[in-house]
Amino acid sequence: MLELRLVQGSLLKKVLESIKDLVNYANFDCSATGFSLQVMDSSHVALVALLLRSEGFDHYRCDRNISMGVNLNIMAKMLKCAGNDDDDIMTLKADDGSDTVTFMFERDQHMIADFEMKLMDIDSQHVGIPEVDYHAVVRMPSSKFARICKDFSSIGDTGIVISVTNEGVRFSTRGDFGTLNLQPEEATIIEMNEPVSLKFALRYMNSFTKATPLSSTVTLSLFSGLPVVVEYKIAEMGYIRFYLAPKIEEVDDEAKP
Amino acid sequence: MLELRLVQGSLLKKVLESIKDLVNYANFDCSATGFSLQVMDSSHVALVALLLRSEGFDHYRCDRNISMGVNLNIMAKMLKCAGNDDDDIMTLKADDGSDTVTFMFERDQHMIADFEMKLMDIDSQHVGIPEVDYHAVVRMPSSKFARICKDFSSIGDTGIVISVTNEGVRFSTRGDFGTLNLQPEEATIIEMNEPVSLKFALRYMNSFTKATPLSSTVTLSLFSGLPVVVEYKIAEMGYIRFYLAPKIEEVDDEAKP
Amino acid sequence: MLELRLVQGSLLKKVLESIKDLVNYANFDCSATGFSLQVMDSSHVALVALLLRSEGFDHYRCDRNISMGVNLNIMAKMLKCAGNDDDDIMTLKADDGSDTVTFMFERDQHMIADFEMKLMDIDSQHVGIPEVDYHAVVRMPSSKFARICKDFSSIGDTGIVISVTNEGVRFSTRGDFGTLNLQPEEATIIEMNEPVSLKFALRYMNSFTKATPLSSTVTLSLFSGLPVVVEYKIAEMGYIRFYLAPKIEEVDDEAKP
Repeated sequence: MLELRLVQGSLLKKVLESIKDLVNYANFDCSATGFSLQVMDSSHVALVALLLRSEGFDHYRCDRNISMGVNLNIMAKMLKCAGNDDDDIMTLKADDGSDTVTFMFERDQHMIADFEMKLMDIDSQHVGIPEVDYHAVVRMPSSKFARICKDFSSIGDTGIVISVTNEGVRFSTRGDFGTLNLQPEEATIIEMNEPVSLKFALRYMNSFTKATPLSSTVTLSLFSGLPVVVEYKIAEMGYIRFYLAPKIEEVDDEAKP
Repeated sequence: MLELRLVQGSLLKKVLESIKDLVNYANFDCSATGFSLQVMDSSHVALVALLLRSEGFDHYRCDRNISMGVNLNIMAKMLKCAGNDDDDIMTLKADDGSDTVTFMFERDQHMIADFEMKLMDIDSQHVGIPEVDYHAVVRMPSSKFARICKDFSSIGDTGIVISVTNEGVRFSTRGDFGTLNLQPEEATIIEMNEPVSLKFALRYMNSFTKATPLSSTVTLSLFSGLPVVVEYKIAEMGYIRFYLAPKIEEVDDEAKP
Repeated sequence: MLELRLVQGSLLKKVLESIKDLVNYANFDCSATGFSLQVMDSSHVALVALLLRSEGFDHYRCDRNISMGVNLNIMAKMLKCAGNDDDDIMTLKADDGSDTVTFMFERDQHMIADFEMKLMDIDSQHVGIPEVDYHAVVRMPSSKFARICKDFSSIGDTGIVISVTNEGVRFSTRGDFGTLNLQPEEATIIEMNEPVSLKFALRYMNSFTKATPLSSTVTLSLFSGLPVVVEYKIAEMGYIRFYLAPKIEEVDDEAKP
């Protein structure tokens, strides 16, 4: 039997909103440790990893490990209808062996919504993520990062170069029209072991920024030649992390730090 | 000669906005009693009934009964351009036998807009609406009802089940994905003679909610097997009512109260 | 060498937003007098004239006249990304003979963005604009004028008649549906030598109103049979003016004052 209770009931809604455009189907894994998900996006370019630790829930009972396969798009729509207010309390229940999961929403001790969602069998495999001592780690307001990704997309190039040097953090995009560099004041270098400059697909970065409502800050962890980690911390519960491999062939000399 | 004056000039604009997507052409009927309209929607599924009583107008002169056929879409656009402010005073004038009607808008004793609209010959027939002692009457904030209809549409099913029992009011929608139930705290049962559960086409319900700006509350009157009445009261003047027949074949056992 | 500095760095962004939909490519002309542009729209119906006087800049150095051909759409996008805040300071630099121009943006003495844009060779010819003693000059809030043009477009006719008489200013549109007249209280006649009534293409008027963020008022200068001048003053710097020829064949008697 699985029974989870979350006073901040809109949290799961925000999580779903942040991944539903990237991934269609996924398994949520519940264990004594917590509620988690790890899944590649449908084109196998990006990886999403979610962790909501059991201690962060107001009630958490998970008698045995269970993997719940869901259509993320439908789950997002249901949660949007049912759990809209920040102060709604959500309870999730699944009986052992059942092929459905039930969500209930209360407000001021009054049941206001519930839905029963069918579960699916979904193939999945976990990817081992090695621990890395990143070349550079940058923290900045999540809204500012979202804004840069959106603005760069409007210009027309498909890539964003993120560079960290002793002089700071710089975001660049270039094309036939010229080159644009942004050096946001609000970005802080948390750690820099080596200067680093990597280019990423803007389309994915833009998708990751859908997690902006989950956290006021975002952390970008960079290592030459390895995937960037775009992390949004979820207060007192865990995190959602997006991994994206760099476009290594396209970083040219001029864009390097 | 017809001459009506309405200090709250934006009222007619709101009325038109609420029906123009449902009905293309209609006759406004003016008599000593008031300004009214009764018309089936273009697919003959829903009925709209409007009444603005003569006492509610600041000046009301109607020498003889007159029926004014209009293109509601064009009338809505004209009113939107001319009568945008809540404190504009509207005057409507039509001479006997004229094929046009004139609308004038003043603000602070200054003429700010006028338009002359051509009238049309439109066939219409009044439907007798029997008085019914409804099984249940529910009142709720009109914005909440609008929200539920909109959210349910996003989920993908085409129907909304409205159920009233001793335990309260419940809105449900279901599909391949599962079942969603909402029990809005804000809904009050005004009257319940019998439990009732009826299913309606969401498309029409969504259209009716365009009347939300006319009233902060909406009343739903339900009787098994008969059309629901979705009523928005218009303060001190009358009402706009929408009638919609239930989808009787599709209410199944699970959705019943 | 060209070097311009503008404390109100978002000004150029607003200028570009106001013309980029009307014109694709244009030459900015820099001389000791100022930074200017004169260009016909792509269908050769409207003319745009911009002047930013050198005195209005916080620093202005222009060693010799230079004409900078740009893709306005790309320049608009770059400025939108880089120079979003009203209190960003913009510096524009071009070396003699260079085929690029550089824009830099600072905030609180911190470089926050820069971009290098390629210049293009663009054919252009200046049109002599005769000085005219206009029949009537009208001033009104730019937002109100924008609203009227937008509302009239929604009604469906393609034209807007602007009439000035002793009784005031009137905007009209007409079609099969009837006639709509607006007499905005907020419009002031600055000068009237003769009554005048002219009809213009709404599509262009709507496009001109993209300059609304540049000035709280707009001035319309009318002369029978000649192009109207729609002018937005740019505080302490100059103006942007749009010229549009009237649709002379279509002004009929009823619409005349």
